[in-house]
Amino acid sequence: MMDQDDLIGDDCAVVELGDEKYLFSLDSFIENTHFKTDYFSPYDIGWKALAVNVSDIAAMAGSPLMALIGLNLRQDLEDKENWVREFYSGVKDCALKFGGVKIIGGDLCKSEAEISVSVSIIGKTHKHGVLLRSGAKAGDKVCVTGSFGNSAKFLEEKCNGNVRSWKCDIFEQAHLRPIPRISEAQTVWKNNSRGALMDTSDGLAQALIEISEQSKLDLCINTEQIPRDKDIDLSLALYGGEDYELLGCFEEVPEDFTLIGYCKKPDIEPKVIFEPNGEMLINNKSYSHF
Amino acid sequence: MMDQDDLIGDDCAVVELGDEKYLFSLDSFIENTHFKTDYFSPYDIGWKALAVNVSDIAAMAGSPLMALIGLNLRQDLEDKENWVREFYSGVKDCALKFGGVKIIGGDLCKSEAEISVSVSIIGKTHKHGVLLRSGAKAGDKVCVTGSFGNSAKFLEEKCNGNVRSWKCDIFEQAHLRPIPRISEAQTVWKNNSRGALMDTSDGLAQALIEISEQSKLDLCINTEQIPRDKDIDLSLALYGGEDYELLGCFEEVPEDFTLIGYCKKPDIEPKVIFEPNGEMLINNKSYSHF
Repeated sequence: MMDQDDLIGDDCAVVELGDEKYLFSLDSFIENTHFKTDYFSPYDIGWKALAVNVSDIAAMAGSPLMALIGLNLRQDLEDKENWVREFYSGVKDCALKFGGVKIIGGDLCKSEAEISVSVSIIGKTHKHGVLLRSGAKAGDKVCVTGSFGNSAKFLEEKCNGNVRSWKCDIFEQAHLRPIPRISEAQTVWKNNSRGALMDTSDGLAQALIEISEQSKLDLCINTEQIPRDKDIDLSLALYGGEDYELLGCFEEVPEDFTLIGYCKKPDIEPKVIFEPNGEMLINNKSYSHF
Repeated sequence: MMDQDDLIGDDCAVVELGDEKYLFSLDSFIENTHFKTDYFSPYDIGWKALAVNVSDIAAMAGSPLMALIGLNLRQDLEDKENWVREFYSGVKDCALKFGGVKIIGGDLCKSEAEISVSVSIIGKTHKHGVLLRSGAKAGDKVCVTGSFGNSAKFLEEKCNGNVRSWKCDIFEQAHLRPIPRISEAQTVWKNNSRGALMDTSDGLAQALIEISEQSKLDLCINTEQIPRDKDIDLSLALYGGEDYELLGCFEEVPEDFTLIGYCKKPDIEPKVIFEPNGEMLINNKSYSHF
């Protein structure tokens, strides 16, 4: 019997078709779980639904090729025709931004209670291979793209009624129209021939735990080196989530990445250790001080 | 700007990867739009969510290879763990039934108000090619697999409280656990080198209109030849929908198909003509008597 656990793995499935390897992924983007229409425009929904799937391809150091879009539209929406037009405008702009991901088809359904978008994407693997969560080795440097907590900060500011703050645009873009790290993912090969990689869509802390578990290593992280805006506190940067950045472990830090720690052989069970203060993330996702 | 119309086409996208052609499709299966949990078990939902995608591959005379499953689970469901286990049992049994479609990954999300399943499937094209809706020629025979109206009859019986009628099992299976026509789709090549093909998921009448439009031909259908149970009236067979049968137009009727009409050059606009009584389906989907 298939178990739910069988379906948990890397960001994409690696599939062999003919003589080549491809990346194949499916992600849903659901009203009230992933977005609300009071601050997501139809354009934003289209953009982000595709962007989170493109990020799955970046997370394995590949390049996106083509996608299918399934849109399930709440029946009580007014002016559905215009809604769908704006939605596809967001999809198309996002597709163009990332080297022209080809939108090759889709499906439009009605739903009763929630808008939902499902996107399936096919990418090609890099000629040097695929980077998995399990690919880190002791001694590897832990590093990240971009900056953390911006997406969650937007929601926090939104709750506090501060959406017109001076940093609104940065936080807003991170949440509504994230930029998947496709080009950054390619640069890792310049000085490396192997490594681990994934995206941080479920939060940096969760991603650190994932690579620690899959690679069976301790990840020692200097929290002072985690890139974040001065208005964003550490816990938001670690646990806020929905930052479509990359977390990788390599022999050499790639040019678009920031060093935040290193990998070492675990004493007993693999874990994430926050230095300098020695806080520790246990792999069962609980959080404890020492 | 991309238009919604750009996304309406055949059941699958045909994609070239390396030197080969593949079929790629995405379909959603949504609570209250496509199923209700008062008569769909989690097993049935898993089975049918995959089956309707397998049918998209059959509709283009291909063979399914692998699929990704995205399950968005309503938070108020009791015993979610068991629900997911039964759901994947249905997915797995359906996958095994059709030559072992490989389930290579997926995604489990929470939703607030509706269960929804999205499935993305990749299939290989037949060595002789792909059959599109536009492939019919004047003189071709119009033919179908199976029998029509069973799925809609289940819903009608259900409404009337007659679910324990003697034919319940046939109608029930057609609605809850449809059998996509993968093997029947392969037999078309025995006596044919070209043709048109699609599935009848949106109803036989709609499928006839689609092939008429895409192939720019009149389809003359003898309604007395449309296979249906004696308890099912013609209008249910034509308009009931959700019969995952195949409709094709070929020079020779394949062995698993039933002849129901022929194709001819249209006088003005392509249309569907019901013989012997001369009713006519106009391509704008309205229905008129003559």
